[in-house]
Amino acid sequence: MDRRSFLTKAAVGGTAAAAASALAAPAIAQEMPKITWRVTSSFPKSLDTIYGAAETMAGYVRDMTDGNFSIQVFAAGEIVPGGPPAIDAAAAGTVEACHTATYYNWGQDPTYALGCTVPFGLNYRQMNAWLYYGDGITQLNEFFNKNGLQYLPCGNTGVQMGGWYRKEINSVADLQGLKMRIGGFAGKVIEKVGVVPQQIPGGDIYPSLEKGTIDAAEWVGPYDDQKLGFYKVAPYYYYPGWWEGGPTLATCVNLAKWNELPKSYQQILATACEAANSNMMASYDHKNPAALRELVANGAQLRPFPQDVLEATFNAANETYAEVSAGNEMFAKIKASQDAFKKDAYLWAQIAEYNYDTFMMVQQQAGKL
Amino acid sequence: MDRRSFLTKAAVGGTAAAAASALAAPAIAQEMPKITWRVTSSFPKSLDTIYGAAETMAGYVRDMTDGNFSIQVFAAGEIVPGGPPAIDAAAAGTVEACHTATYYNWGQDPTYALGCTVPFGLNYRQMNAWLYYGDGITQLNEFFNKNGLQYLPCGNTGVQMGGWYRKEINSVADLQGLKMRIGGFAGKVIEKVGVVPQQIPGGDIYPSLEKGTIDAAEWVGPYDDQKLGFYKVAPYYYYPGWWEGGPTLATCVNLAKWNELPKSYQQILATACEAANSNMMASYDHKNPAALRELVANGAQLRPFPQDVLEATFNAANETYAEVSAGNEMFAKIKASQDAFKKDAYLWAQIAEYNYDTFMMVQQQAGKL
Repeated sequence: MDRRSFLTKAAVGGTAAAAASALAAPAIAQEMPKITWRVTSSFPKSLDTIYGAAETMAGYVRDMTDGNFSIQVFAAGEIVPGGPPAIDAAAAGTVEACHTATYYNWGQDPTYALGCTVPFGLNYRQMNAWLYYGDGITQLNEFFNKNGLQYLPCGNTGVQMGGWYRKEINSVADLQGLKMRIGGFAGKVIEKVGVVPQQIPGGDIYPSLEKGTIDAAEWVGPYDDQKLGFYKVAPYYYYPGWWEGGPTLATCVNLAKWNELPKSYQQILATACEAANSNMMASYDHKNPAALRELVANGAQLRPFPQDVLEATFNAANETYAEVSAGNEMFAKIKASQDAFKKDAYLWAQIAEYNYDTFMMVQQQAGKL
Repeated sequence: MDRRSFLTKAAVGGTAAAAASALAAPAIAQEMPKITWRVTSSFPKSLDTIYGAAETMAGYVRDMTDGNFSIQVFAAGEIVPGGPPAIDAAAAGTVEACHTATYYNWGQDPTYALGCTVPFGLNYRQMNAWLYYGDGITQLNEFFNKNGLQYLPCGNTGVQMGGWYRKEINSVADLQGLKMRIGGFAGKVIEKVGVVPQQIPGGDIYPSLEKGTIDAAEWVGPYDDQKLGFYKVAPYYYYPGWWEGGPTLATCVNLAKWNELPKSYQQILATACEAANSNMMASYDHKNPAALRELVANGAQLRPFPQDVLEATFNAANETYAEVSAGNEMFAKIKASQDAFKKDAYLWAQIAEYNYDTFMMVQQQAGKL
């Protein structure tokens, strides 16, 4: 019944109740409509810091909207398997969004990896500078939108460790035939220097290292690695993880669902992701130092990768980029944009920041901090 | 016809209107009440990146609330002078909040400086780790709340440069009697090694350097320094700025105004500040590399501080902290918390992150990036 018919009833002498029931719904803008989303994480809850970035984001969104925009986060395997399927589920609309490392999907298109990290890529701060000010998010969304997704940066681990080895690696020759658990695009690069990459789920790494089915395995960094106890069966702990120089996690939203959001909710989600992006880095930076101390106390042997290993893998990475770029215009374009920024960023980084940190590290070693 | 006149008209002819006018105002929660705030910045608009962090924050808040929570940012001098008075104005409620470097107010209480940076303090990532996960925000708010303020981190410059010098500094002896424009708490430290600190507003630095009224001046980093043209009159550009290892800007909110905010608006403001915190760092990281190149092309002479200068100022800083801590329990407590974290953080930082960056810098120098 519309307002016009109410007027008619009133005119014929209708009662108050009739009038009240006849009132149309008042035109109050739905400032904060009730929306419930499901976000599937590519990660298990045991990777609490990475998984946690999605919970941080969801918590911010909930508290900013008095619970009206409710995002429930599901761990890997709860509704969608871990790893690559999370993006597919978000693109298909099985869930409204996923939280993932987009390099999981490099096999579908290597361009996916550029939304996370590639070997010898941008470090944490450089990745953010490129994403937020170097047109990075816009360029990535050209690609992600075509795949039915909106890409929002949402977390970072910083430079990871280079993994656990049963024997010392003294030169690139020691990599020949080395069976190493290493994922995705990095595996493609490290093959070029003789490593035989192995795809093994997290839970199977320890027994495989123990039995010697594999010779080495990379995971994340001190905090996460400690929990899996690799130091007991593969004590040589190498650094740096040149294939993970600043991996960005992302919330990838189904594009239609993103476009349906009110503008204010789009901003709420994007801001929550931006805050969660640095919040996750802060969390790792707070947890890793103590974990590193404990690992070393328990027998982990810290080793830097030999220079020739880094040089050989750096060259292998560049060969790989040339090969992929030749057949993939989007990859070529975005990689070139990252590289152009990286070149200048590493010039500036070696001035104030590097010398400050170096001085402080010397003081740390001298026991003066 | 408006609703009021409709009700009046209806009342003369029937009962419906009487009932309608008797209805209490419906219990519609004000999900997004209209609130207008003024934020005074300690900075001029010419420092567009630092000033800009407040605009970024205000823009996020506006867009997340469809404009209902409106924050207008005023540059230094528009309603409150630049520098220290911004915090006083926020504490007094002259404005609802300010955006500032809290070390400006170290003269009132040195504890203020710990909310921003102190010489040889935490770097950008360490500051965030301490603030968000090391109980830093909570500890600082014990202090800020007592001063009528709520402290929210909101921006960072990263390690700054060490300033512009008319003559080369070859050892700590060259600091004796050096008249240097350097602010606040750092001035107190650098006095101990013979420098005569000068307080000079930004606009007066260039003519003072040109005339030789002062021998040196520090400002921010390549992007901001370039605009003021110091390289023309004081070409030696030293690094690192050991007194600004990771200065955090902050939005300091009048405590009563903070407490009056609905919970959702508190979370919106805090999340906007957290996002703006890393966003400002990304902005500088994007702008500084190109500015550094141009400065050097225009004749700036890059120089690292001699090791004995860093060591002497490091010792001077530690002496200062001991003196201040002896008479200020809150300063002592918070400084000890930062130091405990810094010690471990600089252990971890020298493993994966430092070695990754070092390798990449070597490639940069070899022209391979």
